[in-house]
Amino acid sequence: MATINVGVIGFGTVGAGTVEVLRANRDVIAARVGADIVVKKIADLDIESDRGISVERGLLTTNAMEIIEDRDISIVVELIGGLVKAKEFILSALEKGKHVVTANKALLAEHGREIYAAADAAGVNLAFEASVGGGIPIIGALRRGLAANRIRSIMGILNGTSNYILTRMTRENLPYARVVEDAVRLGYAEDPPTLDVDGTDAAHKLAVLTSIVFGSPIAMSDIYREGIANLTPDDIQYAADFGYGVKLLALARNTGDGLEARVHPAMVPKNHIMANVNDVFNAIYIEGDFVGPNLYYGLGAGRRPTGSAVVSDIIEIARQIRSGAKRLMPPLAHVHTPGEAIRLRPMDQLRTDYYFRVSAVDRPGVLSRISGVLGDHDISISSVIQKGRDLNGSVPIVMVTHEAMESNVRKAMAVLGGLDVLTDKIVMVRVERG
Amino acid sequence: MATINVGVIGFGTVGAGTVEVLRANRDVIAARVGADIVVKKIADLDIESDRGISVERGLLTTNAMEIIEDRDISIVVELIGGLVKAKEFILSALEKGKHVVTANKALLAEHGREIYAAADAAGVNLAFEASVGGGIPIIGALRRGLAANRIRSIMGILNGTSNYILTRMTRENLPYARVVEDAVRLGYAEDPPTLDVDGTDAAHKLAVLTSIVFGSPIAMSDIYREGIANLTPDDIQYAADFGYGVKLLALARNTGDGLEARVHPAMVPKNHIMANVNDVFNAIYIEGDFVGPNLYYGLGAGRRPTGSAVVSDIIEIARQIRSGAKRLMPPLAHVHTPGEAIRLRPMDQLRTDYYFRVSAVDRPGVLSRISGVLGDHDISISSVIQKGRDLNGSVPIVMVTHEAMESNVRKAMAVLGGLDVLTDKIVMVRVERG
Repeated sequence: MATINVGVIGFGTVGAGTVEVLRANRDVIAARVGADIVVKKIADLDIESDRGISVERGLLTTNAMEIIEDRDISIVVELIGGLVKAKEFILSALEKGKHVVTANKALLAEHGREIYAAADAAGVNLAFEASVGGGIPIIGALRRGLAANRIRSIMGILNGTSNYILTRMTRENLPYARVVEDAVRLGYAEDPPTLDVDGTDAAHKLAVLTSIVFGSPIAMSDIYREGIANLTPDDIQYAADFGYGVKLLALARNTGDGLEARVHPAMVPKNHIMANVNDVFNAIYIEGDFVGPNLYYGLGAGRRPTGSAVVSDIIEIARQIRSGAKRLMPPLAHVHTPGEAIRLRPMDQLRTDYYFRVSAVDRPGVLSRISGVLGDHDISISSVIQKGRDLNGSVPIVMVTHEAMESNVRKAMAVLGGLDVLTDKIVMVRVERG
Repeated sequence: MATINVGVIGFGTVGAGTVEVLRANRDVIAARVGADIVVKKIADLDIESDRGISVERGLLTTNAMEIIEDRDISIVVELIGGLVKAKEFILSALEKGKHVVTANKALLAEHGREIYAAADAAGVNLAFEASVGGGIPIIGALRRGLAANRIRSIMGILNGTSNYILTRMTRENLPYARVVEDAVRLGYAEDPPTLDVDGTDAAHKLAVLTSIVFGSPIAMSDIYREGIANLTPDDIQYAADFGYGVKLLALARNTGDGLEARVHPAMVPKNHIMANVNDVFNAIYIEGDFVGPNLYYGLGAGRRPTGSAVVSDIIEIARQIRSGAKRLMPPLAHVHTPGEAIRLRPMDQLRTDYYFRVSAVDRPGVLSRISGVLGDHDISISSVIQKGRDLNGSVPIVMVTHEAMESNVRKAMAVLGGLDVLTDKIVMVRVERG
């Protein structure tokens, strides 16, 4: 049986997971590929720490270039993360004609254009299944399974840490800070978990998915971002009263008049399957013009699921090598890009439903003043709950609107913020009916 | 740009959907493949009926062999369904060196061994994404995305008609016969919907999925089958009281000591994501040793979703043709099959939890006699609900057990059936905790 040699750069969590899958399932993988996939070298600056798997000393090196320059290695796997060194290694490997597998969403989101072009110029595979959704084969679904469709929209729960935090806030009625503390202690979140909870990580992943849908990279700066740190258990409870669950969503929608791309907390109807994605699970809900709605669900992170995704890319490339294919498709799965460049639709022009919570003094006519301001901005209320006084003597008023325009909502919030009857900041959460 | 010609045999619902996708999305498909995919001929015995899309008269023929023998056609798409003619056409096309795409799950489940072998001998692609789960790219997920894993289990809702019927029985508390009548009238079910509701269709699909997992066909006769016709709204209601939803599940589980393969109604915990798959939707929940649990969800039937799946296969084959690949992988995605032949585990040896409903006379000691019989057969009760007398003066007793063995359950049911205190047949539904 033929042998296909792989070099792994980065022996951290995902690197160790990748080597572990390749070893534990070597026989079934060989049966599926028709070739033996062998890890020939592993590079890491730290080759002393215990990674939970035993590796022959001779495989380890601190010099990544030993992998990139090894003529017997046909697939280079970049798993160091970060931007500068990872980019350097990937570009060198592509230049040497190696196929490259990476899990580096930040790099693809920030420098994708340059890397995709280098892979194109080299005519080799650049594969990145593990960059989005951990073990969920969502990149493959977009590149292959749904390739007959124009994709209308993507709605993703792409950050497991945020989803874990929101799930516990919902189930246990706990404040954000308390759950984050717990999540850090349990190892579900970094300390501090900034990029997870502020929407950056989800935006990186959304940039990767959207680039495949359109065959052309979109810029991170074009993605609107809002995190979950300001959500309170009260808002989550009110959302439940209205029949919604609260999720951090990554959304892309082809409106026919520009692309919406945004990451923010949103309320989702409880009977929508996305509202039932809990704990550290990720899910991606995609609508295609022929396939209709599709959902992909699984563990979005972790050594074993991410290792599964990295190795699925290695298997796919090994099959191509074995079959004598040049390369089945370019990184973004478009041989050429049809039509015009992608035009991003400004966030101002978003039209959706909105949830507001205001705290007001307990005085007659307050609700009428507030709804008056909303009405002046073309915002009509679909349901409202007014509760009794809270401990500070304020009255919380909670509303869900019909479809309104984001620019009007911003203006209305500015006007409301100036009213003397309000006793606290206004809380706004968008509602996605799916 | 290069042209790749396709011939479509069978111009019914799926055939028309396939041609429709290829035309409506011709530009994006060409961008993704780098070649123009053209429908060169369409064969059907009936070339007069309106299929809802306009097709040039010259494309139509009543002679499928015109497609199979056309040297310019490289991909033959079989969409006539049925066994005899479809098999003949597929084998002829493979013999002529054509790549073949089919949606024919019944044929693959009944005659897969012969067809897979013919594709192997010819060295061409045999693709069948549309045979399971309609538009859900589940075959691709098993062949590629999860290829690094040993698959531990598959739990599928693979028949949209049954799921629609069960969803309405649940929501509206309606009897089976009443919902079936409605489903037939609305076009969601055939009249009569025998193969949908008796588990045969789901078993065909399970046979296809399981064959890919193991790289070797399994026989339809090895799959245990039980349909939904005996379920009552009462049982669905009791299941809800215990915290379960009722679904028709197709299950395959690698126990380490043989493969379980079975289709039957089952109770699933309400907080399991599979219990939230409703209406005509299909879903497949897969556990791999590294990836953990994965779910794939979408429309399992219909002209447009199935057309999307057929065309995804055409795209994949066209990319291989364009890249000069021989063939990326055999039909079952195994170049060779590792280890021993698949051993099916007899249904008798199944261990799971069970739900029972018995109707008994309202007399002291009845519950103790019933639980005594269960205890004699190593079946212990986890929860029990005893309701007041029904209209016939009988008392319904509803129980969920701890894990028990199917053979003991069968024996216990036989003994219970002979008790003079029972006034009606015993209802048994298996419980799957996922």
